[in-house]
Amino acid sequence: MIKEIKSRQNELIKEVTKLNSSSYRKKAGIFKVEGFHMLEMAFKAKVVTKVFSLEKLEEIDEKIPQYIVSKEVMEKITETKSPQGVVAVCNLLPNKTPMNNKVLYLDGVSDPGNLGTILRTALAFGFKDVVLSKECCSIYNDKVLQASQGSIFSLNISNEFDLVELKKKGYKILATEIKGSIDLESVKKPEKFVLVLGNEAHGVSEDVLKIADQRIRIDISDIESLNVAIAGAISMYHLK
Amino acid sequence: MIKEIKSRQNELIKEVTKLNSSSYRKKAGIFKVEGFHMLEMAFKAKVVTKVFSLEKLEEIDEKIPQYIVSKEVMEKITETKSPQGVVAVCNLLPNKTPMNNKVLYLDGVSDPGNLGTILRTALAFGFKDVVLSKECCSIYNDKVLQASQGSIFSLNISNEFDLVELKKKGYKILATEIKGSIDLESVKKPEKFVLVLGNEAHGVSEDVLKIADQRIRIDISDIESLNVAIAGAISMYHLK
Repeated sequence: MIKEIKSRQNELIKEVTKLNSSSYRKKAGIFKVEGFHMLEMAFKAKVVTKVFSLEKLEEIDEKIPQYIVSKEVMEKITETKSPQGVVAVCNLLPNKTPMNNKVLYLDGVSDPGNLGTILRTALAFGFKDVVLSKECCSIYNDKVLQASQGSIFSLNISNEFDLVELKKKGYKILATEIKGSIDLESVKKPEKFVLVLGNEAHGVSEDVLKIADQRIRIDISDIESLNVAIAGAISMYHLK
Repeated sequence: MIKEIKSRQNELIKEVTKLNSSSYRKKAGIFKVEGFHMLEMAFKAKVVTKVFSLEKLEEIDEKIPQYIVSKEVMEKITETKSPQGVVAVCNLLPNKTPMNNKVLYLDGVSDPGNLGTILRTALAFGFKDVVLSKECCSIYNDKVLQASQGSIFSLNISNEFDLVELKKKGYKILATEIKGSIDLESVKKPEKFVLVLGNEAHGVSEDVLKIADQRIRIDISDIESLNVAIAGAISMYHLK
């Protein structure tokens, strides 16, 4: 089905712009992605419900409604300064229980750029199971999606999965925290483990530190700390 | 010297706001930093020429003019949403010739967040000499300063230092590039080397690749590439 939309006041267009709000996304059960790369990844994940584009796209499944929109309408529904001319509306991804031997647990990562970069890196180093605490920013935030480079569609992401449950299942909990830690280089990779990264300002929370089996640090000099996405990447690379 | 400024139209305040422009910073030879942490680092580097704050700061050298400004004036001269209430004007940092055995060369890193994060990481892993190609974004950009966490004041930063000169001095050039590369794990750290990181979209430029002694890659799966700050951090950690 192909239709044209020229008015910025169109009801469908109004709904797409509402998807910038996290609470509206939850209520409606949908989110939006921008650009051809993201569209391709979303198609592979079979979550696309509607496509908005400046020109007719040939390779799109006929069952998925396609809307050809004017430049003005496209500008209204995109966040980027130079939109690629395609926006897709997708169903929110299902919550997936961690099932692999290595799990990444994000304990309150709040910056969208950091979260997106961490997800991109997790996929690159085979950490396919990612658990997000409720304090993390939304993975459907536009900046997260952009920095993630579409990796959210290939990861098993779970919201608020209980870390204690994982510990009961035999996962060792490795938390990035300086106090009482051992150097990353000395860590022997456990067979099953959860790597925990903390909040940008406060680090890993007390509740998580209490149940951690091992605290790990990356040795640095001349500066107080590393960015969380950097510390996470080095840890994941080392434990991959 | 302590003065009060209550008007947003004050000539000095107008000049500070102009420092958001890269060309004005170059012309005037000054830039601005925000927040107490940055102020402290700037003082250590002895580059502070003026301080603007909401309240009188006690520990400031009397020779440096201090201006107590109203909330409205502070909002005008700051970029952050929740300003800490202090802005300092500083002299641009001197261009410093690389002098250590390991040098980081940034070949067109254009995203401010990436550049700032790379500088923070470089300092953490002892890459004190950083050379920026002319295509890089300005280190005095507000987002770069924020992400760098003040590391620019502790690094030897050089603009456009010729890579051929370093090669002549015996430095081995290691470029991050997939084609014809060896895995980072197999790289033997040369005694003197330059690690080159490329542009976010185009990677390391052809001119640099031509003179590179070794191309290195980080093995990844399921995704096309790593973010440049992530690839840089893992490489620096490995070669530190």
